[in-house]
Amino acid sequence: MFEVLKKEGAARRGVFTTPHGVVETPAFMNVGTSAAIKGGVSSFDLKELKCQIELSNTYHLHVRPGDELIRDLGGLHRFMNWDRPILTDSGGFQVFSLASLNSISDEGVTFASHIDGKRIFMGPEESMRIQSNLASTVAMAFDQCIGNPSTRKEAEIAAERTVLWLKRCQKEMARLNSLETTINPKQMLFGINQGGVFDDLRVEHMKRIADLDLDGYAIGGLAVGETAQEMYRVIESVEPHAPAGKIRYLMGVGTCENIIEAVARGVDLFDCVMPSRNARHGHLVTHEGIINLNNQKYERDPRPIDEACSCPVCRRYSRAYLRHLLKAKETLGQRLAVMHNLYFYNTLMEDIRASLDEGRFEAFRRENSEKLGTRI
Amino acid sequence: MFEVLKKEGAARRGVFTTPHGVVETPAFMNVGTSAAIKGGVSSFDLKELKCQIELSNTYHLHVRPGDELIRDLGGLHRFMNWDRPILTDSGGFQVFSLASLNSISDEGVTFASHIDGKRIFMGPEESMRIQSNLASTVAMAFDQCIGNPSTRKEAEIAAERTVLWLKRCQKEMARLNSLETTINPKQMLFGINQGGVFDDLRVEHMKRIADLDLDGYAIGGLAVGETAQEMYRVIESVEPHAPAGKIRYLMGVGTCENIIEAVARGVDLFDCVMPSRNARHGHLVTHEGIINLNNQKYERDPRPIDEACSCPVCRRYSRAYLRHLLKAKETLGQRLAVMHNLYFYNTLMEDIRASLDEGRFEAFRRENSEKLGTRI
Repeated sequence: MFEVLKKEGAARRGVFTTPHGVVETPAFMNVGTSAAIKGGVSSFDLKELKCQIELSNTYHLHVRPGDELIRDLGGLHRFMNWDRPILTDSGGFQVFSLASLNSISDEGVTFASHIDGKRIFMGPEESMRIQSNLASTVAMAFDQCIGNPSTRKEAEIAAERTVLWLKRCQKEMARLNSLETTINPKQMLFGINQGGVFDDLRVEHMKRIADLDLDGYAIGGLAVGETAQEMYRVIESVEPHAPAGKIRYLMGVGTCENIIEAVARGVDLFDCVMPSRNARHGHLVTHEGIINLNNQKYERDPRPIDEACSCPVCRRYSRAYLRHLLKAKETLGQRLAVMHNLYFYNTLMEDIRASLDEGRFEAFRRENSEKLGTRI
Repeated sequence: MFEVLKKEGAARRGVFTTPHGVVETPAFMNVGTSAAIKGGVSSFDLKELKCQIELSNTYHLHVRPGDELIRDLGGLHRFMNWDRPILTDSGGFQVFSLASLNSISDEGVTFASHIDGKRIFMGPEESMRIQSNLASTVAMAFDQCIGNPSTRKEAEIAAERTVLWLKRCQKEMARLNSLETTINPKQMLFGINQGGVFDDLRVEHMKRIADLDLDGYAIGGLAVGETAQEMYRVIESVEPHAPAGKIRYLMGVGTCENIIEAVARGVDLFDCVMPSRNARHGHLVTHEGIINLNNQKYERDPRPIDEACSCPVCRRYSRAYLRHLLKAKETLGQRLAVMHNLYFYNTLMEDIRASLDEGRFEAFRRENSEKLGTRI
């Protein structure tokens, strides 16, 4: 259930209530692809980092360790010892980007596992069954993802198939949620808007899926190489047609600037590997902009990564120490860097929410949107 | 200052008082070679793992990030944010094992850095200056290490040179500790016993260094390929000649069994990379023996690594989850495995101390020494 508490322009301050607790929105999901945050961050660390909701990957967990194993061990929450909400993506994006694709039809997709080359078939029903085994809080519908650039025809076919698949996902989930053996019989379903960068296809598609009364609506297929301006334009186009009373999730986005700009356009929920991946390479977000800790100038810098940050890393360690660890390829360096960036993103969302609560989001946006994206 | 509280046979229960706090002995030092525990374990994690004293490496920190940098940032305690005792080894062992050796004389050793091939000279004075810059609690004397097997002649020459160097270390440390700019003017010095596996050389050498009134006495050059029985025999030979009122440190040892057996022969202090290195490969110590988490049989095992362990990992995660993380090469798997093994070692020492306090060490040894070394 989603409730909008307050609006400022298109931006929304809301509360998303789930069987595993409440998510205050706008919110950023911390990505633990294979049931672990890369860089050695545990589910207990996530709590210290103020993570409200974790995201794991259906495709990855299906190929290893297997969703049936996780089901037999009580589901993903118990497996990774995390009692707050988990969203699982449908595997759609990974099937089209990571695996070697063999064939695609209205039935589903046949592909080879990136682990052992094993031939796997996945369609909407299979994706729902896997996610039901994982027992995540929110399952994503299985969609057809297209590359960028794609032709209008390709975008049209994929969008059409995504509607067909969504209806089948909805039906299969209803069936799975009604079974006595299902771990989470209150699993929620989000549909995914597709249509490439073609505004009219996007709008048409959103109108069709809006009718299906899903628990949430995602905008997929963005942040795949188009410009930020194209992405913002697509969001602006579809936003008026997304159900006003449902949570809106922009998939795979992004920089702090992207997030603030998307909130300004009505988005409530985000996920991205960027803060953790960049951290592992020494690129850290601060209130003054982005720093590259590999730079010589930080070699003897006794200050924390960000003097305005109160994360466990900034409270304890210097830039000089972190730089040393990264240079020495100590995994502790990656870990501390990832912890800082995730905490920064999670507190950025807190700050966005506070600015919405207090009716000063536009001022917050003006002050921060560009600054946080600047390399200093 | 070292105080023996109680004895049982040759085994000793003691307290080692340092400028950075007290170490209850027998104790195991947790190894953070380059100012970080491998596997992504931080100085704050170490406290949760009951670590009393951390060990870092003079050679590694000299070549990266440089001991002068660490001095300028306030010393190693501040650099890695650790306020309990730190022991630094002298670099001797690393110079002879890691670096490419160019030449050795009574002056010292010329070698090439394993990082960038840079030519470096290190003798007793250089080692003391580096360790004074690091400002560790305990500095180790610079010694000449020999391989195994070595001839009696080689062992004799190395032992002779180690005495010569020890006297120069003592003199140089007295000078450094008297300087106004020294970060830790109360730095302590341990001498290192050498002599290979030749008991008479070992005894002769220990007698000579015992006269120097050092803060502690280490047995070096063991655990380099000789049998456990040879090692125990050497310890038994030198133990009666080590000063009774000084702490005794067996360098680079070892398995749980090795530690219990060495305590039984009068050793107070240990260090080893084994628990962390083995953990990263899935080899975990438990109260029942050693398990290899890579084994298929743990694939769906919902139990913690060790049901009798209350470490942060055993309290939270299953063998199945840890095995998945290790198989998926998630760094979190290595981190959790290392945390368990270090906690196990640190609580093993607690148990040893309790058994000595209660006069039942021999029973503890009979029950555990062999069992803990068994692969199950």
